[in-house]
Order: sequence, then C-alpha cells, then structure tokens
Amino acid sequence: MIFIGERVNAGFKDIKEAIQKKDQEPIKKWARIQADANATYIDVNLGTASNKAEDLCWMIETVQEEVDTPISIDNNKPDMLKEAVKVCKKPPLINSTTAVEEKMNTLFPIAAENGASIIGLVMDEGGSPNTADQRVEIAARLFEKAMEYGLSPEQLFIDPIIMPLKFMQEQALEILNATSQFKLFSDPPFHIVCGLSNISSGAKHKKLINRIFLTMLVANGLDAAILDVTDEEMVNSILTAELVMNKQIYADSYIEAFRKG
Amino acid sequence: MIFIGERVNAGFKDIKEAIQKKDQEPIKKWARIQADANATYIDVNLGTASNKAEDLCWMIETVQEEVDTPISIDNNKPDMLKEAVKVCKKPPLINSTTAVEEKMNTLFPIAAENGASIIGLVMDEGGSPNTADQRVEIAARLFEKAMEYGLSPEQLFIDPIIMPLKFMQEQALEILNATSQFKLFSDPPFHIVCGLSNISSGAKHKKLINRIFLTMLVANGLDAAILDVTDEEMVNSILTAELVMNKQIYADSYIEAFRKG
Repeated sequence: MIFIGERVNAGFKDIKEAIQKKDQEPIKKWARIQADANATYIDVNLGTASNKAEDLCWMIETVQEEVDTPISIDNNKPDMLKEAVKVCKKPPLINSTTAVEEKMNTLFPIAAENGASIIGLVMDEGGSPNTADQRVEIAARLFEKAMEYGLSPEQLFIDPIIMPLKFMQEQALEILNATSQFKLFSDPPFHIVCGLSNISSGAKHKKLINRIFLTMLVANGLDAAILDVTDEEMVNSILTAELVMNKQIYADSYIEAFRKG
Repeated sequence: MIFIGERVNAGFKDIKEAIQKKDQEPIKKWARIQADANATYIDVNLGTASNKAEDLCWMIETVQEEVDTPISIDNNKPDMLKEAVKVCKKPPLINSTTAVEEKMNTLFPIAAENGASIIGLVMDEGGSPNTADQRVEIAARLFEKAMEYGLSPEQLFIDPIIMPLKFMQEQALEILNATSQFKLFSDPPFHIVCGLSNISSGAKHKKLINRIFLTMLVANGLDAAILDVTDEEMVNSILTAELVMNKQIYADSYIEAFRKG
C-alpha cells in the first residue's frame, strides 16, 4: 500500500497558523510523525493559508529538512506546481489533475518532464461521475492522455472520486465496481488511489466507515490512499487486507514488523 | 447479513460438558446471548460429545425452550438429520452437504421435504478445491442438483471453503474471486456463506484477520457467515460493509439501532 499522509494540510488549524507565522515546528512535527508511521509520501497542502508558490516551496523544504519521505504536492495550479516540483529532492506525486482537457494538457507534461507521478481524478468538463461506467470511461481518457505525454502506467494514480456514504449511499457500490474494472486497463497497471475521508463526511461512525470502505476498496484492487497514517486500526486493516490479497508474505507478527519499519 | 451463531458447539468445553451431563443451562445461556446479539440462526453441533440423534434433538429442543431463533443443524449424518429436522419448530438450515454425489442425493431431499435450507460446501470426491475455477465448477454442480430436487436458490447456501491464511495464503484470493463469480449464477441468487474462523487458524491476530477477510468477502457478495455473533467489532464491520453495498439504508445510528434489535 502506498500511504499518503494527509496531515501537513492547512485545513488543519495548526498547519494553517504555521504557514501564516512561518513557524516550521508544526510542519516538521507532523512530517516526522507521519514518516515514523511509514508514510510513503507526505502530502503538502497550502489550503486557504496562502496562494503563493514561495509558501508552498517553503512547506516542502520544511518537510524535507526533517524527513526524506517523498512529497505529494497537493495543488493544481500549473505555475505553483512548476516551482514546487523543482524544490522536491525526490520524485514527487502531483495531487492532482482532472480529465478536463486543458488540465491534462498542462499538468501531464509537468509530471513527465520532472519524473513525477500524478493523481488523475475521474471528473471532467461534465463534473463528477455518477456511475461506475462513467468513472471507467473518464479513467480511460486520463490513462490514454498520460501515456501520450510519455508517463508510464506506474506514474499514474487514478482516483475514482469518493462520495459521502451518508448523502449519496448508492455511489459507494459504483466506486467499488469502477475500481475493480480499473485493474483490467493495463499491465503493468496504474495505481488506484482515493482521498478516503470523504466517504464518512457527516457520518457518526467516521473511523469505522473509513476503515471498512478502504478494506473493501483494497479487495477491489486499490493500492494507494490519502489518509491519516497515524490511525493504527486503519493501518492494521490495510496490512491485513494486503495479506489476503497476497501482496505481502504472511508472518505472524506482520503488524509488529511494519511498526518497526 | 445472515448471522449463524457458532457457540452452541461441543468444540467448546462448556457445551461438551453440558451434553454429557444433560445440563441445559450452558446451552440455554448461549442460545440467549446469541439471540440477543441478533443471530439469524443458532448453530447446534454435537461434536465428539455424542453420536446419538436423541442428544442432537435434546440440544435443539433446549435451544428452542429458550429462544425462537431458527436452528442450524451442524451435522451431515442422514439418519440423525432426519430426526433433528423433525423437532425444529421453524425451517432449519442443514449444515452441510458436499458435492459428493451420494451426499447430495441423500441430503438435498431431506432439505426439500422439510422446507429446510442447506449449506453446500464446494468439495467433492476429489477433495477440497485449490482454485477459484474449481470452486465455481463445484458450486455449479451443487446448484444444479439442488434445483433438481426442488429447492429454491434462496434455500441453498454455498460455502467456498475457507483455508488458513497462515498456511495457504494464496487461497484467500482464490476464495474472493470464486465468491464474486458465485453472484452471477442465478437470479434470485443463492446465499454465499462461510465458516469464518478457519481463515485465522494458527494466526496471531485472529480477530483482525477474521474481521478483515469477512469484510472483503462481503465486498464480493457473501451474505451469510458462521461466526462469533458476540464479537461486536466484527458485527460493526459487517453492518458497515452492508451499508457500503447498499443493502441497508444509511442512518447515523445504524450500529446502535442494530444493537437495540
């Protein structure tokens, strides 16, 4: 599983204040906590704290002063991305493009020229999809365009767009069905990723719903997620699901071994 | 989800002693606990405590003195089953037949004549299957034979045969794949059931493995399980997975509502 740690995000109050005050400590603290929890990428998101490329670069550099985990640049503005990609010490993940033509034609080249990976959201000029078939059709366009620009399948992460279970319950099954179809696109396959927390938006049993939905997505082929990597029950569930999928070799102490890194 | 409570089983020491001493209390206690935990069936298993039909009938009658939950008769001996089915106040579930011809030709008629449901294990003269395709092929024979004997699809529960993750790790994915194919057999579909605990046989993190594997099976269409219905984390996982599968209508307090019955 590719764990994308969600916590260095100005949607959280401590990070927003850190950006405004140029205080490195909260950012370094969460970079360290997430790296210690085996995050594969540290997602970095300016949110509404700033719209300056230099602030995004400062966040990335702050994270990189503390840990050597690759960065997920959570931004979709081409000018900012071009600056941000340059300061990344390791190939980053660009989070994200949609299938809107202009977006793809701008962001895929940035990824390709910089050896970066990129998340493609299955939404386009028509908005968000309602069915599994629409998701698959948009994913196909993202895949074809990414290949045209010279990306490898492994550099592409497709996100089926998670909708809240509480408000759009029937969407969950469409997302599972789309995910299982994504697997059949190419060999080697592209990655399948999701921004998990949206599934439990407004719900009472958030952590349980997040954990169970992600387990079901893993059963359908998902192999990456933007999530709270410090949620041990969540991570234990994913590790177990990956044993079931035969992606890791069984050992009695598979959880303990993961925690030790 | 059809919850088949596993606890009135002579594999547990208290139940074995209860049978030997003809002490109704432990059996009634576990019948009550499981009924209160919303078991759909109470599984009743003599184990090695006895091989007499009268003891099996005594167990069933003991359960029925305490609760009105239907019985799952965990026995495959035709003579004992014929007696046991007669004392059941509600249509029971017969647990189980295999696809061995002689077994099917004996047990399906008993189910059909008594309005009982029956579990069909996907194993035959050749033993247990190793692949998803073998499981599907054997399930097809169970299904055809059950229909020949006049059972409805809803009276048939197919069990894909769970193997221990620790010792046969690659089987887990075969089981998931078989389960997803079972759904396509008939409309209305037969039920898909499993004896869950085998997945964690010999493992360290038993409850976690049970819970995650069952969640993944539900994502693939399983709708019944023989399990510890008092395992609240397990039941919460199943309830959540069924919301995702759109089999229950979302409510914020879906767990609390289930607990209240």
